[in-house]
Amino acid sequence: MKTKKELLSNTIQPIDIMQHNVVSLVDAMAPMAYSSRDLARAAGLFEMMVRDTECGVILCLAGSLISAGLQKLIVDLVRNNMVDAIVSTGANIVDQDFFEALGYRHYIAPDEYKYGAHDGELREMQIDRIYDTFIDEDELRICDETIHQITNSLEPRAYSSREFIAAMAEYLDKHGRTPKQGQPDSIVWACYEKQVPIFCPAFSDCSAGFGLVAHQHDRQGKPVVSIDSVKDFYELTQLKIANPTTGLLMIGGGVPKNFAQDIVVAADVLGVDASMHKYAIQVTVADVRDGALSGSTLKEASSWGKVELTYEQMVYAEATVAFPLIAGYALQKNAAEARKGKKLAQVLEPVTA
Amino acid sequence: MKTKKELLSNTIQPIDIMQHNVVSLVDAMAPMAYSSRDLARAAGLFEMMVRDTECGVILCLAGSLISAGLQKLIVDLVRNNMVDAIVSTGANIVDQDFFEALGYRHYIAPDEYKYGAHDGELREMQIDRIYDTFIDEDELRICDETIHQITNSLEPRAYSSREFIAAMAEYLDKHGRTPKQGQPDSIVWACYEKQVPIFCPAFSDCSAGFGLVAHQHDRQGKPVVSIDSVKDFYELTQLKIANPTTGLLMIGGGVPKNFAQDIVVAADVLGVDASMHKYAIQVTVADVRDGALSGSTLKEASSWGKVELTYEQMVYAEATVAFPLIAGYALQKNAAEARKGKKLAQVLEPVTA
Amino acid sequence: MKTKKELLSNTIQPIDIMQHNVVSLVDAMAPMAYSSRDLARAAGLFEMMVRDTECGVILCLAGSLISAGLQKLIVDLVRNNMVDAIVSTGANIVDQDFFEALGYRHYIAPDEYKYGAHDGELREMQIDRIYDTFIDEDELRICDETIHQITNSLEPRAYSSREFIAAMAEYLDKHGRTPKQGQPDSIVWACYEKQVPIFCPAFSDCSAGFGLVAHQHDRQGKPVVSIDSVKDFYELTQLKIANPTTGLLMIGGGVPKNFAQDIVVAADVLGVDASMHKYAIQVTVADVRDGALSGSTLKEASSWGKVELTYEQMVYAEATVAFPLIAGYALQKNAAEARKGKKLAQVLEPVTA
Amino acid sequence: MKTKKELLSNTIQPIDIMQHNVVSLVDAMAPMAYSSRDLARAAGLFEMMVRDTECGVILCLAGSLISAGLQKLIVDLVRNNMVDAIVSTGANIVDQDFFEALGYRHYIAPDEYKYGAHDGELREMQIDRIYDTFIDEDELRICDETIHQITNSLEPRAYSSREFIAAMAEYLDKHGRTPKQGQPDSIVWACYEKQVPIFCPAFSDCSAGFGLVAHQHDRQGKPVVSIDSVKDFYELTQLKIANPTTGLLMIGGGVPKNFAQDIVVAADVLGVDASMHKYAIQVTVADVRDGALSGSTLKEASSWGKVELTYEQMVYAEATVAFPLIAGYALQKNAAEARKGKKLAQVLEPVTA
Repeated sequence: MKTKKELLSNTIQPIDIMQHNVVSLVDAMAPMAYSSRDLARAAGLFEMMVRDTECGVILCLAGSLISAGLQKLIVDLVRNNMVDAIVSTGANIVDQDFFEALGYRHYIAPDEYKYGAHDGELREMQIDRIYDTFIDEDELRICDETIHQITNSLEPRAYSSREFIAAMAEYLDKHGRTPKQGQPDSIVWACYEKQVPIFCPAFSDCSAGFGLVAHQHDRQGKPVVSIDSVKDFYELTQLKIANPTTGLLMIGGGVPKNFAQDIVVAADVLGVDASMHKYAIQVTVADVRDGALSGSTLKEASSWGKVELTYEQMVYAEATVAFPLIAGYALQKNAAEARKGKKLAQVLEPVTA
Repeated sequence: MKTKKELLSNTIQPIDIMQHNVVSLVDAMAPMAYSSRDLARAAGLFEMMVRDTECGVILCLAGSLISAGLQKLIVDLVRNNMVDAIVSTGANIVDQDFFEALGYRHYIAPDEYKYGAHDGELREMQIDRIYDTFIDEDELRICDETIHQITNSLEPRAYSSREFIAAMAEYLDKHGRTPKQGQPDSIVWACYEKQVPIFCPAFSDCSAGFGLVAHQHDRQGKPVVSIDSVKDFYELTQLKIANPTTGLLMIGGGVPKNFAQDIVVAADVLGVDASMHKYAIQVTVADVRDGALSGSTLKEASSWGKVELTYEQMVYAEATVAFPLIAGYALQKNAAEARKGKKLAQVLEPVTA
Repeated sequence: MKTKKELLSNTIQPIDIMQHNVVSLVDAMAPMAYSSRDLARAAGLFEMMVRDTECGVILCLAGSLISAGLQKLIVDLVRNNMVDAIVSTGANIVDQDFFEALGYRHYIAPDEYKYGAHDGELREMQIDRIYDTFIDEDELRICDETIHQITNSLEPRAYSSREFIAAMAEYLDKHGRTPKQGQPDSIVWACYEKQVPIFCPAFSDCSAGFGLVAHQHDRQGKPVVSIDSVKDFYELTQLKIANPTTGLLMIGGGVPKNFAQDIVVAADVLGVDASMHKYAIQVTVADVRDGALSGSTLKEASSWGKVELTYEQMVYAEATVAFPLIAGYALQKNAAEARKGKKLAQVLEPVTA
Repeated sequence: MKTKKELLSNTIQPIDIMQHNVVSLVDAMAPMAYSSRDLARAAGLFEMMVRDTECGVILCLAGSLISAGLQKLIVDLVRNNMVDAIVSTGANIVDQDFFEALGYRHYIAPDEYKYGAHDGELREMQIDRIYDTFIDEDELRICDETIHQITNSLEPRAYSSREFIAAMAEYLDKHGRTPKQGQPDSIVWACYEKQVPIFCPAFSDCSAGFGLVAHQHDRQGKPVVSIDSVKDFYELTQLKIANPTTGLLMIGGGVPKNFAQDIVVAADVLGVDASMHKYAIQVTVADVRDGALSGSTLKEASSWGKVELTYEQMVYAEATVAFPLIAGYALQKNAAEARKGKKLAQVLEPVTA
């Protein structure tokens, strides 16, 4: 039986898409069929929405993507002004990106572990498994505790997840965990610098939740830091109102997909005649036939008045294969050349008074 | 082309599982293979967890289930003391269950609509589509507005979604929309009467979000009602601590699955030596191979220390077929005969002072 | 580690659907959504095609269905005149049905075997695995050898798979492996008695192939028994011409689906103005998005002129759950009451001169 | 409404993978997760099996791959001695590759056609649809008729599909449809030139079936050309015996997968102590949970003694995206540099006396 040290020895290496030319490959997929054609069309739509300097690009992230090696790709999009807001599951931002920013890593699981034959042993060793990837649970607990400390340092009141994540970025800066200080870049930090707001509408549903619960438990009835998911929704809606032309690049479905689509309706509820999302792409393997949101088509979303029909594309592919090709295509074609950072975080109230 | 009235003429009819004996059918599936065998084992595990009077049963709901005809099934489980807490997406509870409690219905879409060929026309008619089901968007807007009114009636402070949903139940009572007043039963109301807490950890990600955002927008900087997702997590963790033996019946994955599994870790973070969930069942068609949470196995959850390995079962089946068989099996075998309602809502702080 | 005897101790038990009333359950699914509604419509269509006494019902079988406990269900359909021809993969008919008729059984694999963690050990013990089911390879080799003997007993010439399968039925009779002789019923035998032709268009792609190859190898260049897949196609086309109204009940996709659909075109090629299949049902979990035949919709088949659009239904469900409900519904409603066996095997040339 | 001419105006363009460097991209996927890691490992295994000059590489093709733009990729593998035998569905070889060799093309279907909303109109126009691709049925009928003519030109006897496909290649040569005559290359022709045998174990289950049935119908009881699927199996087994080290590259599942795996057992039945397939790769999106062959793991195949466990890899991806990356990787790394064509067709009896 392998030791914990042996099991946690091969690290996941994020892809650096700028090292691999994908433009001609993706172009060659356009006149093929099935996923290749859809992927090529999606890449073209992503290029188009980035070239549309009016367009606020909202990147939605569901699934365990950072642990799978997609962190650098997302950082590259942010650093190149190709993403103006992010809506994500908490796990991607806290348990995985912030966790890596703290200096921890994800590990490649040997193949025989991925079907669950050894999960009892992993439990004994405090190794957490995400399909074919390992995490050191002891390190994850330090991440939880770091969130606890950040929470304790904040003035008690209701925060949006965006505000809280900005405080996480400040923590990284204070503790020397940013590129300025010779450390690797992270989504949390890059977005902070570029003023790209990050929203996690189910923020307590991740490592952050543990730290926040610990905080509220400590406070014994005294005023607490709370995370107001309504504030998230209100803030994201304000961004839609401030920047009416929008496009969605959705990796996976779930809450981020629904939440980002819903802001069109929310703006309408607030009395603003908001346009539907002009562009929409979703990469997913979820099936449409169970009626759930994650696999529902973008045409279905158009019946709700959320997404326009002209520039939408579903791509049936697993994200680690498709996302680098789609994002790399627009990156390598310099789609963002005329684009300046929209700094949408400035639209919202300042994080600290 | 059909008119809106024609399109909204065939209503979805919730299944009344007590009218159909499923016990022998499910027993016959046990010595078969694939989904039938897994479904039969899951039904037996659900019976076992309900017979275990120590066990607090947590029902997790993701996907559009109420609109698909599963409302009465869930009400039956609640009324029979077979569910002690619910964790759900907001859509099931607000847009669908509360919406139906207000007197509105879901409609059967003709087959030719389900692949999106007519979504542009639906948009014109204000008909929203969920795969093969229609909703009158005008009615949904009234539901949003009702949430707005309820929010305005509450004292400004941070609420858990559980508290807010209790206020929704009180609204139904005040407005004559409960069985006492000759109206159909609903999950929101049945849970209120039985003191079964309902949590929607991403509460603003549904019809509720629109009403809540409208409220915060109205308030122009004055104190607001906020929804604290940390409070949700803290409350659900308190239930785990108060009732250490727990079982999960998960329909779909997403946030409800993750959230309910995580309370074991949260209890541990609070210094309580909490046991893993003793029983766990998940019904899903999500694939395991994209590494996302929804399709991740319960064995994987055991590596995280969340779920015990002895009594866990994944069932690969679409929920409208599998859930009535699993729940009906335990219902018809009177698994709850020795069971009294745990009234877990009483464990938590009173909603109104 | 378990012994071979321990591993091969729990037998698969075929479902006897007549013991479980499913009619009201299926009717209750009709006004729901997703798979339940589709399943109910499919059950109604199957009832309709059986009530249509003009209609020749063709049952298509792909996937390992007999090993999964569906043998008796299919025998019941045959015995009740509800199936007039079968098109199947070879595995279902030879490795599984004929194999069981020889007195062998399939076994329930413990859960920990189904993800492949112990396949090396199974190999050592000569246990073959089909997902969650075990087969004794020694017994399967006897089945192969039986086919070898049957082949050797036949006059050397080209046979359709239908002819060969009829010879397999005669073997069962001669060796006392039929209900007349106190042994369990089988699909091969029931079809022989009811003169329901069975076609396996890729007949050598199963246990039969091993026996047939051994035969041709023995013959050292002398005239051999050969299996002419063209003859299969020609014979099935003749049935379509002889009985123009046809309906397809397809469990899974693959070669049986394609083959049975194609006879409409083949009749046309032979100069007969054949009508498309009037009814068509397919139960499958295959995804449409990879463009493969197994998951392709029946609407797509209508573009090829193979299937009419009026009475077609895809059902997204695993077969062991859905097929008993669909078939049981028509059986229990006595859909076949006015139906006599069509004895389509009589249309074709006699098996033995 | 669009005319037939308008609908058949955008042709599918096969990918020329040598124009796009994929090596560094695939290498970068190796230390990621999910499909990317599996795809990279599969590419490395394919390189390894090609570098193993002892290894006879068997390419298995299921699904509509040629119509999707994968023809040139497969031709490139054949021309570079990287494939020594092909096992395929009939559609890929006859309806699609031979059809293209005759000068016909496949067409890109507009997006709104791919969900079946217009299949009735397509039927009227004699346009056949494969998901998002169109075929001119009039041209396909000419292909059927060409097969009819080829069949009529052959001496009546039992043929393996391999022999028949060789005759198709000769037809192309005689009718000026090869690169020598300035026409595009095809799989049928390239394999003929390179003496790479092609097997379609369910040969009548495609366009070929129509021509062959017409032939047998014409003959009115006189001796006919028949297609002996046993001969296919026997021939492929002989190749295994003649070249004991083998590797499988399987695109999709179905009959080709099963057939190619089974030759290990067939060799054993013939008394030859054949080794299992040393290498095995499968690209598929089929789910494992329905127990069907297409999605069954290669570990499961090892329980049957068909595939070794050391060098096997399943890749969860749609073929048009994954196959070019896997094949291109080995091509661009010159994996075949020490490889000479094995000319396995020479092992088998000559096609014509």
